[in-house]
Amino acid sequence: MEEDTSNINEIRATRFRNLPSVSSLSQEELIITAPEEPELLSSIRRRVQISSEKIETGSLNVLSAKYESLDYDTCENYLLLDEERKKGYRFIIKKNLARWFIFLLIGVITALIACAIDISIEELSQLKYASLSDYVDEYVIEGRLHIPYFLWVLFNVVPVLIGSALVAYVEPIAAGSGIPQVKCYLNGVKIPQVVRIKTLFVKSVGVVCSVVGGLAGGKEGPMIHSGAVVAAGISQGKSTTFRRDFKILKYFREDHEKRDFVSGGAAAGVAAAFGAPVGGVLFSLEEGTSFWNQSLTWRTFFASVISTFTLNVVLSAYHGVPGDLSYPGLLNLGKFENFSYQVYELPIFLLMGAFGGLLGALWNHINYRLSVFRMRYIKQKWLKVVEACIVAAVSATAGFLMMFCLNDCKPLGQDPTKYPTQLYCQDGQYNVLASIWFQTPEASVRSLFHDPPNTHNATSLFAFVVIYFLLACWTFGLATSNGLFIPSLLTGAAWGRLISVGLYKIVPDQVLIHPGKYALIGAAAQLGGVVRMTISLTVIIMETTGNISFALPLIITLIAAKWTGDFFNEGIYDTHIQLSGVPLLPWEPPPLVHNIYASEVMSHPVVTLKCVENVGHIVELLKLTTYNGFPVVDPPLTDQSEVTTYGRIRGLVLRSQLIVILKKKIFNENSDFWEDINVEIFRDEYPRYPTIEQVYVSEIEKTYSIDLRPFMNPSPYSVLHSASLPRMFRLFRALGLRHLPIVNDTNEVIGMVTRKDLARYRVWRHQGRMGVEELVISKEV
Amino acid sequence: MEEDTSNINEIRATRFRNLPSVSSLSQEELIITAPEEPELLSSIRRRVQISSEKIETGSLNVLSAKYESLDYDTCENYLLLDEERKKGYRFIIKKNLARWFIFLLIGVITALIACAIDISIEELSQLKYASLSDYVDEYVIEGRLHIPYFLWVLFNVVPVLIGSALVAYVEPIAAGSGIPQVKCYLNGVKIPQVVRIKTLFVKSVGVVCSVVGGLAGGKEGPMIHSGAVVAAGISQGKSTTFRRDFKILKYFREDHEKRDFVSGGAAAGVAAAFGAPVGGVLFSLEEGTSFWNQSLTWRTFFASVISTFTLNVVLSAYHGVPGDLSYPGLLNLGKFENFSYQVYELPIFLLMGAFGGLLGALWNHINYRLSVFRMRYIKQKWLKVVEACIVAAVSATAGFLMMFCLNDCKPLGQDPTKYPTQLYCQDGQYNVLASIWFQTPEASVRSLFHDPPNTHNATSLFAFVVIYFLLACWTFGLATSNGLFIPSLLTGAAWGRLISVGLYKIVPDQVLIHPGKYALIGAAAQLGGVVRMTISLTVIIMETTGNISFALPLIITLIAAKWTGDFFNEGIYDTHIQLSGVPLLPWEPPPLVHNIYASEVMSHPVVTLKCVENVGHIVELLKLTTYNGFPVVDPPLTDQSEVTTYGRIRGLVLRSQLIVILKKKIFNENSDFWEDINVEIFRDEYPRYPTIEQVYVSEIEKTYSIDLRPFMNPSPYSVLHSASLPRMFRLFRALGLRHLPIVNDTNEVIGMVTRKDLARYRVWRHQGRMGVEELVISKEV
Repeated sequence: MEEDTSNINEIRATRFRNLPSVSSLSQEELIITAPEEPELLSSIRRRVQISSEKIETGSLNVLSAKYESLDYDTCENYLLLDEERKKGYRFIIKKNLARWFIFLLIGVITALIACAIDISIEELSQLKYASLSDYVDEYVIEGRLHIPYFLWVLFNVVPVLIGSALVAYVEPIAAGSGIPQVKCYLNGVKIPQVVRIKTLFVKSVGVVCSVVGGLAGGKEGPMIHSGAVVAAGISQGKSTTFRRDFKILKYFREDHEKRDFVSGGAAAGVAAAFGAPVGGVLFSLEEGTSFWNQSLTWRTFFASVISTFTLNVVLSAYHGVPGDLSYPGLLNLGKFENFSYQVYELPIFLLMGAFGGLLGALWNHINYRLSVFRMRYIKQKWLKVVEACIVAAVSATAGFLMMFCLNDCKPLGQDPTKYPTQLYCQDGQYNVLASIWFQTPEASVRSLFHDPPNTHNATSLFAFVVIYFLLACWTFGLATSNGLFIPSLLTGAAWGRLISVGLYKIVPDQVLIHPGKYALIGAAAQLGGVVRMTISLTVIIMETTGNISFALPLIITLIAAKWTGDFFNEGIYDTHIQLSGVPLLPWEPPPLVHNIYASEVMSHPVVTLKCVENVGHIVELLKLTTYNGFPVVDPPLTDQSEVTTYGRIRGLVLRSQLIVILKKKIFNENSDFWEDINVEIFRDEYPRYPTIEQVYVSEIEKTYSIDLRPFMNPSPYSVLHSASLPRMFRLFRALGLRHLPIVNDTNEVIGMVTRKDLARYRVWRHQGRMGVEELVISKEV
Repeated sequence: MEEDTSNINEIRATRFRNLPSVSSLSQEELIITAPEEPELLSSIRRRVQISSEKIETGSLNVLSAKYESLDYDTCENYLLLDEERKKGYRFIIKKNLARWFIFLLIGVITALIACAIDISIEELSQLKYASLSDYVDEYVIEGRLHIPYFLWVLFNVVPVLIGSALVAYVEPIAAGSGIPQVKCYLNGVKIPQVVRIKTLFVKSVGVVCSVVGGLAGGKEGPMIHSGAVVAAGISQGKSTTFRRDFKILKYFREDHEKRDFVSGGAAAGVAAAFGAPVGGVLFSLEEGTSFWNQSLTWRTFFASVISTFTLNVVLSAYHGVPGDLSYPGLLNLGKFENFSYQVYELPIFLLMGAFGGLLGALWNHINYRLSVFRMRYIKQKWLKVVEACIVAAVSATAGFLMMFCLNDCKPLGQDPTKYPTQLYCQDGQYNVLASIWFQTPEASVRSLFHDPPNTHNATSLFAFVVIYFLLACWTFGLATSNGLFIPSLLTGAAWGRLISVGLYKIVPDQVLIHPGKYALIGAAAQLGGVVRMTISLTVIIMETTGNISFALPLIITLIAAKWTGDFFNEGIYDTHIQLSGVPLLPWEPPPLVHNIYASEVMSHPVVTLKCVENVGHIVELLKLTTYNGFPVVDPPLTDQSEVTTYGRIRGLVLRSQLIVILKKKIFNENSDFWEDINVEIFRDEYPRYPTIEQVYVSEIEKTYSIDLRPFMNPSPYSVLHSASLPRMFRLFRALGLRHLPIVNDTNEVIGMVTRKDLARYRVWRHQGRMGVEELVISKEV
């Protein structure tokens, strides 16, 4: 019998080569050694090789050490329980009502800011382009077209100079669309400064400047970012920028609540930018929140609806039809009506989607190269401002050259042009390109969607596509605050219209091959190819054009664009996030990593604290390390071997908590404090806690001790050293954790897993092969 | 110094009364005693008191012991690792492609079934109502109206008899709308029979019968259920009903994958029922899936879109406009166009929403009472069939009496009536009520939405509302397969129109007070008051009426309806789920339960197994207990005290796995099996494993042993005994767990938490007070 079993065990051992002998692990073996990998595995797993001296700027394979996680997990310490017990259900109800009220405010204020941006842009551009159009027609007769040209350059450069100087010198985080930053925040990464009021100010003024300055950018991204800042601002009842604490809403001062509000703010921003409340909710879900929480989703929806409502009320008054909320002029991209499509057109839409994916991937690649170039060589602030001004001047030049060289004339009256510019056209005609250039990009998209057939000829469209594609690519990533939704839509609308011109040559049926329909599909394809969102984008486009019957063609186009684009590279937002080394956690763990164990992933050794700890020791630890979470343990029993240096886990305490405790001097030896200690003392400092250097602890106090038990999180989620990477990943992602202590068989802490440890493992694709790669974490990025 | 500290400790002890002395817990104290509750807490926490003899039928406070959880957590045992290692990335890609293909099939087949249901209903009702209309006009002249009346009753009773007999005798789970069952399934509860092909058959035939039979019911709920069954069916590559195993798609045979497919199927069902792809995705998110997974959401969206597409292709051919997918006749409730609303109408919509919430709450209450009555007294199958037939006869009678008594005549031609019935009207006129009754409820909703103003007078509308309200209430819960969306919409549309008649008296402006607009708002309010969904319902109504500009009024109405309704009772689906004692987990844990600890919640003692366990012992355990998960532990060390009867946790093994191991006789002593063991042997038996009684184990085999390590889940999520209820709840909900072992400080299993343990704690509201109540789990429900 004995013989027999050993034989089987041998067979089994051969079969389950990878089976680590779990049961034989003793107390001393703290870390299981990774089982030897068979050949197949090693070929699909690789570690990113980086020369040890210097990390190359612009690498996509490095995670920056500077980003911290938000903490979505509530710290259920005794202070919280105490508050709950004292305040009871009334407090819960009050908090809930306050939440709804804040979401209402978020919706209203976001919409008002959006209105301010909208109306400023509209009024200023009207001034600018009306006068330019007049000047052109005035000076063309005299043959002195260089005067309107220089004026145009001036009108472009001055606002852009203001906008980019604000961004470069006052608040660099306000550059770009803001969507990558909001995405990171919703994913759970703390991006410094991203939700500050100063950022909001620079962003709003900056976006007006850059759109009025004629850059190939839109106001949508910045509006979404504005919504996020508004949400973070008003939910906290205090402002760091203004150093004011209104002493209200203190109970929302924690990462968990703040992130919920920010997701509502982002949704309200989308709703205000596109008039798309449902799209807003989907955006904040698609881009961020991990756990679909019904009540949060309702509040988000509520904020989006309020935001659309407020926007429409204000804009309907601005447009002279106060109160008529179904006025079609409120739709950003104009109302699509009475278009229909046939089944056999769907393959065409599919191909257009794929083409959009290709173009989008190309766009992303060029922009990525450009961004790397910028990171390496355009580092000084003045250089950034200069670059922005050059782009502004080039934009004007490109527009001017186009209308000067391509003499595309159409009779007046057919097209609802605001400032018909005659230029070299005959009387009764206007220059089509001038009418496209002499307006904001958003208005140009509207024109391309709704201009009657035959307004634009193939040559002008082609030239416009090429020039605008490159301009948009150059513009995104400048030190100006502007988004890429509108330029992408514009590029796509132009080539979509171009395709309709081609198709019309084959099937001359003006109802079937309506250019507006193809412009819409092209716009969706281009945008989908660049940003790679699908669901929210479909709904946003549906809502912003007021057309629901186009859902199917849009979805087909967007899915084709995404798949084609994903074959080549990542979406532009993800590329930029990777460039800045943000440890974003994707939706799912990479495949085939069930055999990577916690013991391999975790950081160790861990710095632990005892339940009652010496003050001096804590101060020293905080000064020596940069860790943000410390497991609280029972001191290891002395009669055991020396190897066990860690104790049994009791809880988890954060650096911020320790600092507040030190600052407030809540030591066991100071009895007079105990009656006043409640959870609010931590909220008062949130979110910017002092550093350990700013806290003064006297020498005598260093001999005192702190009882950490009332403050620590008494039951943090923890997993065994033998837990697999996907298991930790899911726990981390679904619950929004910041620290995950790893314990051994007897519940002693042996390591700690943080966001960066998990974000390091990434799918790796190359020439049809796939694998897992391990990124490098660096402090230099 | 010593003195001082003790003093502080005392103060602290007074302050943190509730602080259980965690650190003083020794090995022996397995369970921390619940800290004594202060008065405030005890007043807000109560245990539901049930007399011990007999559980009252129809109680909302009992959980049934018969429901099991689905297992959303992947069992990462060595067999799975082995498969991963052997098959590599190609397998991942293949699986992924297969997933997309299955979602495509789900969309197509769900839509085809929906088409079949749609067209059958349309054709049969056309036959029925055309002849009835003719008979009425034929016999009214002779004064023998009892003949068409009896014919009507006959035409109602015969189909309902067939439908209800099918439901009562063949598959009782096919009764009702199916949405509560699908909701439970998506929530993670295994409802027996719910996704079987037999259910699909009974459901589809049943819904045709009940709608043709003139019951106040719709086809939408059953279509959603059909989608879920289709998804569960084709994703598994085998059918239990037909006893066929196609040996394909074996890798999808697990709860996790199946539930993902079912969520796609439900979405496709919504998409087919309402032509609402976005609404479908939101429905499956709002009702079910906890963790928003991007790739799953995309596939769900894809299935919904394919489903809408297929449906539209088939129906456009059926309507004689093949290929024209934007044909407005494809919208179920007709296209809403050119309506506008003003800001000052929003308060009216808000009030209508609140009124809908009131009516909905009343409806739910009556239906709840009726359901309890049915559970108590209508238990025999024949009685159920008889009740359904009576309702069918009463429906005909009510309709007949209405058109007989209320002689509401309108001139022909103004209203697009299909079968104008003259009845007592003058020549050139028709009876309006006859035209409402002589069509399916869905067509009646369309009429009320789109009939021109002045088509319906106040008296007829009022009578219709009262009668239809009661009829719909009586119908829902019968042993027939039909949903409540359409009857609720119809009731609401009628009272909405009634309100517009009233408003018109005050403000005689036909454009402003368009009755169709008010009918739509009323319909939304009534439906929202009954089912209490918000986001998905808004989008569904928007999509099914093809109107996006009504988003804001709809949202306001639905939120008002939900809040008003929630003040009185729960949504009808939740009421029915509670009636059947299903342990549904809500979105969030009840408030103020941070001081309920795992040690109070868990079931104990736990039955554990050793890593290598005796076969006879396993067989005995499986026969003696009904547990579905067994922690695998290291045997406790013998030199410790007697109290520690459990060992250190090593893994978790499921009853189903043990049964398969026993059936396949994978014992340590049978060496010849080891080469063939892979993860597929478990998939072959999924989902209906044999019972322990069906597995034969010989006496000699009972002396053998099983090594559980390759099969068990080696690192199940577990929490400490001191974890709070919200903490466990979030873990359970976010990760879709089935078992959660509770461990003590040294990682020894001391209890187990399952879905029922968590679902027991519920918010309790009464007369403005709130608290937590603890439900009873019973085997008798």
